[in-house]
Amino acid sequence: MSTSTSFSTAPARGMRDLLPKETALRDWAIISLVKTYEQYGFTRIDTPAIENIAQLKGSEGGENLSLIFEILKRGDKLEKALSENSTDQKKLIAELSDLGLRFDLTVPLVRFFAHNQAQLPYPFKSIQIGSVWRAESPQAGRYRQFTQCDIDVFGIKSEIAEMELIQATAQALLNLGFEKFTVRINDRRILTALVASCNFAEDQFNNVFIQIDKLDKIGLQGVKKELLANGHANEAVEKICSLLDNLAQNATDKTLHKNEIATALLSRLPANCDKEAIMALDNVITAISKAAADRYAIVFDPTLVRGMGYYTGQIFEIVTAGAAHSVAGGGRYDKMVGKYSGRDVPACGFSIGFERIVSILMEKEQSTKTELSKIAVIFDQDRDHLTEVFLKANTLRADDKCISLLPKKKDMRKQIDSLIAEGFNGYAIYHPEKEGLDVKAF
Amino acid sequence: MSTSTSFSTAPARGMRDLLPKETALRDWAIISLVKTYEQYGFTRIDTPAIENIAQLKGSEGGENLSLIFEILKRGDKLEKALSENSTDQKKLIAELSDLGLRFDLTVPLVRFFAHNQAQLPYPFKSIQIGSVWRAESPQAGRYRQFTQCDIDVFGIKSEIAEMELIQATAQALLNLGFEKFTVRINDRRILTALVASCNFAEDQFNNVFIQIDKLDKIGLQGVKKELLANGHANEAVEKICSLLDNLAQNATDKTLHKNEIATALLSRLPANCDKEAIMALDNVITAISKAAADRYAIVFDPTLVRGMGYYTGQIFEIVTAGAAHSVAGGGRYDKMVGKYSGRDVPACGFSIGFERIVSILMEKEQSTKTELSKIAVIFDQDRDHLTEVFLKANTLRADDKCISLLPKKKDMRKQIDSLIAEGFNGYAIYHPEKEGLDVKAF
Repeated sequence: MSTSTSFSTAPARGMRDLLPKETALRDWAIISLVKTYEQYGFTRIDTPAIENIAQLKGSEGGENLSLIFEILKRGDKLEKALSENSTDQKKLIAELSDLGLRFDLTVPLVRFFAHNQAQLPYPFKSIQIGSVWRAESPQAGRYRQFTQCDIDVFGIKSEIAEMELIQATAQALLNLGFEKFTVRINDRRILTALVASCNFAEDQFNNVFIQIDKLDKIGLQGVKKELLANGHANEAVEKICSLLDNLAQNATDKTLHKNEIATALLSRLPANCDKEAIMALDNVITAISKAAADRYAIVFDPTLVRGMGYYTGQIFEIVTAGAAHSVAGGGRYDKMVGKYSGRDVPACGFSIGFERIVSILMEKEQSTKTELSKIAVIFDQDRDHLTEVFLKANTLRADDKCISLLPKKKDMRKQIDSLIAEGFNGYAIYHPEKEGLDVKAF
Repeated sequence: MSTSTSFSTAPARGMRDLLPKETALRDWAIISLVKTYEQYGFTRIDTPAIENIAQLKGSEGGENLSLIFEILKRGDKLEKALSENSTDQKKLIAELSDLGLRFDLTVPLVRFFAHNQAQLPYPFKSIQIGSVWRAESPQAGRYRQFTQCDIDVFGIKSEIAEMELIQATAQALLNLGFEKFTVRINDRRILTALVASCNFAEDQFNNVFIQIDKLDKIGLQGVKKELLANGHANEAVEKICSLLDNLAQNATDKTLHKNEIATALLSRLPANCDKEAIMALDNVITAISKAAADRYAIVFDPTLVRGMGYYTGQIFEIVTAGAAHSVAGGGRYDKMVGKYSGRDVPACGFSIGFERIVSILMEKEQSTKTELSKIAVIFDQDRDHLTEVFLKANTLRADDKCISLLPKKKDMRKQIDSLIAEGFNGYAIYHPEKEGLDVKAF
């Protein structure tokens, strides 16, 4: 039993172990996030990691659908699948799994809401913090299991839901020590009107969105090239690029980010834009600008697309100086619940990229502010009377203290250096002849 | 997109959704458990949900090995497995998966320790709280995904590790409001000596253990019957039953649970018992009896077996009055790390049955003591000026308050009843003509 076998000790490909320092930081961040969100009336719920495979594959998860970890059928069901499909490999593969791991928290949340609605308050405001799994090619900093942190509101049709989501998320980031970040906001209906006003064919809108989404990375000339390469009419391409250029210039003008000036910006949009969408966007920008009070900024960004197919209204994300990717993203998806229940329910969510947040905090060496005073009680496990060591150490215990029993090592000096590095505040050495334990601070 | 489809909204078979009330209780319990364990020098770590399938199947997980959720290979690897094994179904099934979901936290922990040892303090004291998955037949109260909560010590060979684990776990239960529970303790070496002293064949020891393990459920006569049915010699069966009877009677004698009296009990064991094991057991019983100070009890139970094959020394579990199953269990497993690293490391752990704890707390309607004062700000989302509602509600915000914006419902009385049921402490109705918001307590 104690002979060494050929087991590798490394985690599976794309997976990783979380060591004490990072785990403490993650726990601290989660407790802080939940506390902030609770102050805005959200409550935490959880769904299982495993969903029926049909549920996952039938969702609007875009390219994530090809990244699902599928779970093999078991017993008779597996044998049946194998014998009934032995001639058609493609058909067989589709029949091998009955379950899969969730690839995001939104698809399970919508199922959860549709299933449990009778037992939930309405409107319902949820917090979800949990792991999701995607079989992506592992890269530096990208893992196949990662944590998402979402808040969602079901049952509020007005843009006050967006205001609450944006402010709660911004406050959550402020409470974690982030500052001077920017909320970018747009509306899918405005985006659609923009594209429509340039006379693109309606069945090409999604393709145009995908090209516009690359603006950040490849610039306006790059987008123009991509649009032409995708076969769109020269005139339409020229028109959308000139519109985007004009809007983008205004959107990055600092004087335009405050209050009612947003209205002026919105007035530059084509006449076919949904008036209610413009009003609602103006309301949100005005409200958040005031609430932000210079701690963070909100800007209208007509080029913001967000990947998901399910968005129906406002979309938003948060960018921080120095980070290549957004640290949070979300939007309104009023048509998703109806897919399950047959009756649409207004819905809107904002998701923090927990892993990005954690890696920024790790780089900053964010303190996790443990309030425990850590004391090591050192003894000789070969010679001392262990019952007495244990009971004497007990006399030091208190709610604000960590008392850890540790066997003496050969090199005491080295042991003390290690204890200091581990964050201990002091130590006591057990002496059989002494009554109590003398704690020495480091 | 909003047409109803045939999707079921129920969670997958054997899985379940966690609603706000239970999630709040679970969060509260986890924070309390972590806090207690940190006071004993343990630190939280985490391993991925997914491990290599060879890792899981090569472990000493007993019957859990047949309950693994296996993950289907993907892409070329899957196609290759299918084409190379098309004639042998049994061989094919073994080649279809490369990964699996963890079925406990001990197997991944040992891999984690072997892999990361250079970056960890030594001795290393870990806290793990996480989901595990087993493809069991679902039953009332038994799910296919459930949470385990383990503490483990690597690198302490003396029984002070057991003392620390038992006291920390007992204190964690006390802090959750449990009381008057009993720690049952035994040692695998004593159990082995007992069985050996009755002249059972050595290759039959495990079978004898399995029958003794049933004592709780089927009584001494039942165990006797099972042992005979399993073909053991009549004389050996009579001898072990009389030994167990004698020991069990003393073990349940209340006057024998304190301090040095344990020594008297231990002296009744057969002469072939490991003297060091008896000494260590006496030390632990003496130390814990004193530390418990009548808040809980510890009893020597020579019939305690615990299922796992990997235990090498002391084993223990905690039983509470009224609960059919133990609420915690653990023991020493000094030979498991060596399987990975080739070098044995002393190891010992104690695991709380988190789901059992939670269901007892749910029945008790345990308060989760939220300190937030919850205020609902009610407005008319069709008529009120939403930016102003949002900004006025902001003026009420404070660290100890939850301010939740909620649209007015038709039946105000019913809405207020719901808010009270949800735990709100008061409400404020927005009036456009009024300066501030008047908060009324419920």
